[in-house]
Amino acid sequence: MTNHPIGELLPPTRLMLTPGPSCMDPRVYRAMATPIVGHLDPWFTEMMGDVQVQLRKVFKTENRITYPISASGSGGIEAAVLNALEENDTCIICVNGWFSERMAVIAERAPGVTVIRVEAPYGRTVDPDDIRRAAKGKKIKFVGLTHGETSSGVMQDLNLYRGIADELDALLVVDAVASLAGVALDVDRQRIDICFSGTQKALSAPPGMAPITVGSRVEEIIRRRKTPVCSWYFDMAPVMNYWGKERTYHHTPPISLIYGLREALRCVLEEGLEKRIERHRQNQLALVAGLEAMGLEMFVTNPADRLVTVTAVRVPKSLHEQTIREQLLDEFDIEIASGFGPVKGQIWRVGLMGYSSQKNNVLLFLAAFEKVLLDHDFRVPAGAGVGAAVRTYLQSVASDQPVAVGASIR
Amino acid sequence: MTNHPIGELLPPTRLMLTPGPSCMDPRVYRAMATPIVGHLDPWFTEMMGDVQVQLRKVFKTENRITYPISASGSGGIEAAVLNALEENDTCIICVNGWFSERMAVIAERAPGVTVIRVEAPYGRTVDPDDIRRAAKGKKIKFVGLTHGETSSGVMQDLNLYRGIADELDALLVVDAVASLAGVALDVDRQRIDICFSGTQKALSAPPGMAPITVGSRVEEIIRRRKTPVCSWYFDMAPVMNYWGKERTYHHTPPISLIYGLREALRCVLEEGLEKRIERHRQNQLALVAGLEAMGLEMFVTNPADRLVTVTAVRVPKSLHEQTIREQLLDEFDIEIASGFGPVKGQIWRVGLMGYSSQKNNVLLFLAAFEKVLLDHDFRVPAGAGVGAAVRTYLQSVASDQPVAVGASIR
Repeated sequence: MTNHPIGELLPPTRLMLTPGPSCMDPRVYRAMATPIVGHLDPWFTEMMGDVQVQLRKVFKTENRITYPISASGSGGIEAAVLNALEENDTCIICVNGWFSERMAVIAERAPGVTVIRVEAPYGRTVDPDDIRRAAKGKKIKFVGLTHGETSSGVMQDLNLYRGIADELDALLVVDAVASLAGVALDVDRQRIDICFSGTQKALSAPPGMAPITVGSRVEEIIRRRKTPVCSWYFDMAPVMNYWGKERTYHHTPPISLIYGLREALRCVLEEGLEKRIERHRQNQLALVAGLEAMGLEMFVTNPADRLVTVTAVRVPKSLHEQTIREQLLDEFDIEIASGFGPVKGQIWRVGLMGYSSQKNNVLLFLAAFEKVLLDHDFRVPAGAGVGAAVRTYLQSVASDQPVAVGASIR
Repeated sequence: MTNHPIGELLPPTRLMLTPGPSCMDPRVYRAMATPIVGHLDPWFTEMMGDVQVQLRKVFKTENRITYPISASGSGGIEAAVLNALEENDTCIICVNGWFSERMAVIAERAPGVTVIRVEAPYGRTVDPDDIRRAAKGKKIKFVGLTHGETSSGVMQDLNLYRGIADELDALLVVDAVASLAGVALDVDRQRIDICFSGTQKALSAPPGMAPITVGSRVEEIIRRRKTPVCSWYFDMAPVMNYWGKERTYHHTPPISLIYGLREALRCVLEEGLEKRIERHRQNQLALVAGLEAMGLEMFVTNPADRLVTVTAVRVPKSLHEQTIREQLLDEFDIEIASGFGPVKGQIWRVGLMGYSSQKNNVLLFLAAFEKVLLDHDFRVPAGAGVGAAVRTYLQSVASDQPVAVGASIR
């Protein structure tokens, strides 16, 4: 009985090889379809504890304050930055792409704060000496950076920046949206004061939450603030109570997403973090080998700087970025991403994150990409991409069989 | 293969008769379990348009800027208030409960703003003359209020406050979190400048989104701001582009929740808004008749001020609020809510919202409540509650049969 024109929900079935959202395990969808209970139900508040236990394992931390913020990954940036900064504070933000720039933009909105941007071009890491120079003579509250810059496929060495932050007696704030559970990250050993992520990347949980963890030093800063955080929604002090022992109501969290996150975290921990990280590494190596064998160039020239979860590929001069991407979607239902801002039209970004990081997906993508490139007169030696990728798997199986095989995902 | 102690997700099956979240139609769960696509996928961006068309019908508006904010209902408050207010502005907030107070608390965090609270006690509406007095000689940017105060079960007459706002040449900002799709509301005819809601109440969509609509006057105010909104996440200007023609990326929205919202909106529009509102009204009348027949008192003494979706009941002196509520949950899996703040321990709040507003639920609740009250020596005439409720349905069927029967829910 319909008196309304909007029909049944019938989305296409896509393979998402983007920098998020990634594909999700069917187990996670099943969790999402589980009837909800109230957010103050004793069963639910106990279950919140399970999610926190799991998140601590994934972040590798014992931080008490570890929970998923009810917002996208960008909400994680906002919570991290606004809670840490108070009037008259100065912070340094390492800007080497779209999302680290977003951190700066958000910090600049905090009332009475000075934000120093230390920049590097897209595709490069920020030079520690530039940070030292920018900080000279100033009291720096924190150094903020992205671990993995989704916009350009660059990964930065956290230990290096921890060292700089130590020199400045500053906190370290890390955007791990694109890295958590796909790249090695150890909040406690690397002494990250605030670390946040997004659910829809290497965790392969549904989009809409931003896991965050803060150390005791930051907890103290938050408790001792003289002025309230200008955003009530992202003020961590009261939310810490809802996710703390008290379970005091703050806002109604997205219950179904928490169910999905719980299940996704179970998948991560059942596979094992080390195996999962190795799976991500192997699949990206295969992808890069395949793309290079097809005659394509990586945007990040230094392999050590490449973000394992997102591979940025230069668009050859003879090709139109968007046309290729659209054909891949229309003909093969495979989604990859474009570049933003200064690299718009110049790069493709291929995500291999979480459940999407599978041998099958790498091989299928390379095969489909070959077909699309050939249609646009970009000459690819027959089967070169797939052939090169397959060979990286052979080597890895030979040298290190137990590591290359995941619990349920290869 | 488990090396991890967190087991399968096995929540209890609850009947949620709370002021949110409400129970959801199985169709909505099915939508939530639908495999996602990317947030920039052309299919998805087109589907966003469907959601907006549906939201406009439910809000009864032609406002271009109508979309679901990626946050809980409280995020809706924040977006409404922070976008409308700029330095040196003065606003009036009608505070008559927990959520209208939250609006004031959020507004007070906006830099350089003066917030005038015009108060009424829990259980009462705000006196228009108090607003006039408070505004005297001041330029008021907006009058903000809750349509339905979830914390006390009070509904306020929007036409009355629109009149006052007109006298002050002020905007009208309405929190319709507890009323949208359960109570008559007409954004365009009632000339509400900013109206927001939550998905988890009478819409019976999953918690985690806050539908909002803003009129052209507010759109203009947002575009002409001299200073940016202090929250980047809740800044409506760029989000209006993502939900506008441009579909420019702002943040990754909670795709599965949007699927769920789309399906919940289909349910609302298939039933028909008028029928749905009448269903809510009938079921609350039955509930109130039942509770009164059991010897209980309503917290809101004036029937005209009662919020249809949330009924506040006084806890008799001989009973312990929490004990009763807990037994109802443990023995019958029925969740009702307590009071907050000044009415803590003094009231129960029974929600009949969206999919939860069903005859069957009213009758079951009254029967179970009778059992629990008797266990605690509160004397209830046998079957009095159920008997009285059944009689209200008889009357309504006799007098107005077509209106009392919903499309699929009674």
